[in-house]
Amino acid sequence: MFPGLITLLTDFGLDDAYVGIMKGVMLRINPAVRLVDLTHAVPPEQVLAAALILRSAVAFFPEGTIHVAVVDPGVGSARRAILIEADRGTLVGPDNGVLCPAAALMGRRKARWLANEKFFLRGVSQSFHGRDIFAPVAAHLSRGVTPEEFGPVLDSIVEVDIPAPRRFGSTVVGEVVHVDRFGNLVTNITGDALACFPAQQLWVSISGTRIGALRAAYSVVAEGAALALLGSWGTVEVAVRNGSAAKMFAAGPGTPVTVVVESRET
Amino acid sequence: MFPGLITLLTDFGLDDAYVGIMKGVMLRINPAVRLVDLTHAVPPEQVLAAALILRSAVAFFPEGTIHVAVVDPGVGSARRAILIEADRGTLVGPDNGVLCPAAALMGRRKARWLANEKFFLRGVSQSFHGRDIFAPVAAHLSRGVTPEEFGPVLDSIVEVDIPAPRRFGSTVVGEVVHVDRFGNLVTNITGDALACFPAQQLWVSISGTRIGALRAAYSVVAEGAALALLGSWGTVEVAVRNGSAAKMFAAGPGTPVTVVVESRET
Amino acid sequence: MFPGLITLLTDFGLDDAYVGIMKGVMLRINPAVRLVDLTHAVPPEQVLAAALILRSAVAFFPEGTIHVAVVDPGVGSARRAILIEADRGTLVGPDNGVLCPAAALMGRRKARWLANEKFFLRGVSQSFHGRDIFAPVAAHLSRGVTPEEFGPVLDSIVEVDIPAPRRFGSTVVGEVVHVDRFGNLVTNITGDALACFPAQQLWVSISGTRIGALRAAYSVVAEGAALALLGSWGTVEVAVRNGSAAKMFAAGPGTPVTVVVESRET
Repeated sequence: MFPGLITLLTDFGLDDAYVGIMKGVMLRINPAVRLVDLTHAVPPEQVLAAALILRSAVAFFPEGTIHVAVVDPGVGSARRAILIEADRGTLVGPDNGVLCPAAALMGRRKARWLANEKFFLRGVSQSFHGRDIFAPVAAHLSRGVTPEEFGPVLDSIVEVDIPAPRRFGSTVVGEVVHVDRFGNLVTNITGDALACFPAQQLWVSISGTRIGALRAAYSVVAEGAALALLGSWGTVEVAVRNGSAAKMFAAGPGTPVTVVVESRET
Repeated sequence: MFPGLITLLTDFGLDDAYVGIMKGVMLRINPAVRLVDLTHAVPPEQVLAAALILRSAVAFFPEGTIHVAVVDPGVGSARRAILIEADRGTLVGPDNGVLCPAAALMGRRKARWLANEKFFLRGVSQSFHGRDIFAPVAAHLSRGVTPEEFGPVLDSIVEVDIPAPRRFGSTVVGEVVHVDRFGNLVTNITGDALACFPAQQLWVSISGTRIGALRAAYSVVAEGAALALLGSWGTVEVAVRNGSAAKMFAAGPGTPVTVVVESRET
Repeated sequence: MFPGLITLLTDFGLDDAYVGIMKGVMLRINPAVRLVDLTHAVPPEQVLAAALILRSAVAFFPEGTIHVAVVDPGVGSARRAILIEADRGTLVGPDNGVLCPAAALMGRRKARWLANEKFFLRGVSQSFHGRDIFAPVAAHLSRGVTPEEFGPVLDSIVEVDIPAPRRFGSTVVGEVVHVDRFGNLVTNITGDALACFPAQQLWVSISGTRIGALRAAYSVVAEGAALALLGSWGTVEVAVRNGSAAKMFAAGPGTPVTVVVESRET
């Protein structure tokens, strides 16, 4: 069991000291805790985008890691603060779905309501629960406080609606769910869903434009050419070698991407 | 006493390796030191903005934390390098006022001139004192070198002029001092100054537009509606639920904000 | 010998979790490793820019530091993954030249091909070697795995072409190689090359505009005035006091900068 690693994902940006303040709160409770930033540049209050980025990361962290995600448009409302216990670690954040896709991947066991104010900062604000609730709870967890001490098990929590690809015969219709810094278009079509077909029989189209069969690497096409491949998120990705697919196809979250199984090869 | 936590606040940005270089310098002197970034996105050479962000953060760090702030338009001039001893920790930076508001909050005791070149990098440049003076001094402090070894006590240092709110009878006139990533407008009107009145009797206006009484949380108003509340900086804040108050009111640092005590309630 | 400090330099940006994921991979292998970010904002796939930033930083880190640089337009192609052993530490990255200028400064000994897949993540992708190869290799190095275990010595590796200044009699013609956040123009003319002349006899011009002799500090000229000085990169730098030289001279990488030795003084 890893003794105290906490990751942080927020929409706070890095222009203010909000993230640093959360770290100060945690280090005051557990001076030995290790802290890793996932990202703080989630577009403000975009819960689905945050959920997808968190899910992309958790598999690569040690067993027992505590993941804190604070993208929280409902701060100060009746929405609950929760933790989720999973086989591979613990997740802490608001009950708005942001934790759920990652929790599923980590072997979700049960969710608890963070009801025990003993583990909060004194004088909890209604505007910054990252500092006042989530950071101190995660730090106490990292010191070995057991999940049951934080509050009761919840029968149900808010789930986030990740768009699922649909299958029509030999065609899978998905969509772009994320655009990364390079302009790569990450889709919701997982490699698992296509695993029974050889890559060279899987033809990918975006917005009706046929790109070609699944490739092994960016470098098999010419500079500036488009390709589709199984990307680092484990899903079909549309990319342009040393260029931006987002620009070439004027595409973004929601743009349809289709994979057709064809018997003829590339 | 916390054994070696240093926070960093600069206007260096994250596009170059300047911040990483400061960390390398510190880790060479104290391999066990813990480092936390507050922000490196202070607008270039904006001492007041930096001073306010630093002040917003220090209360949340452990006793004994060393805070380094390098927003330093006078680097290479006659401006002195200083440290400030306070009840709750130590501050290191240029003598241009950037440390003062935070030092006051931390229980300022005395300031010292960093005169002892023994604790600098060899070959101090005239353009990067963050690397050559402030980083090594902070790292030596974190190893237990006592403040008096760095140089003599100073009778006076440069203070920064934080705009103070003015009170006219039942009216407090302040101004916006900071806009955060969400477009929230942080003012200089502290909660303390209003503590003797019930929130629902405190009516807030910005640029002459009446917003309403102080609210408890963003979520008590409708999506897209404006509100005023005591924000996470401990001051009156004008916000828009799931939107940007900076945009709605075309407001920024200097925009006047008024709180009027009224006997009728919300 | 420093027991496990790794620096990271990439073009991944901070909007996604790619950098955090690399850290998760490393902490799973070596929970005690210290991690320092140099920058992740290298313009996508700009190997030369990355090489220059890395070179600007390595001298300030402890002996034994491991530097990982992943700016890798050839990922998934036949380009090799390498490590370079140097007197002052180790460098890990793609064989595209990004490591070479820093390695030279660190006392380069030999390069090795990262051939031993035992030290990679299982199921190496063709699109994210930062996560799958470079992060785990660096982490194993930090735990004390010896360089020879990773693969065979290479006779030659790819070198990057850093533009060198040319000398014509008493004139040195160089160019801008980097623009920092402040708009300072960092050139390729090193202080060493000019060391035998007094600064006040070294007259600097940019794009044909004469700026003046080398100065000691920004603060010796008036606000808004241009000057040349030996900057924090150890090279001639063109700056504007509390302003942007990049804007004033519409200059960037490649803009010619000339230093002329004149017998008359400033």
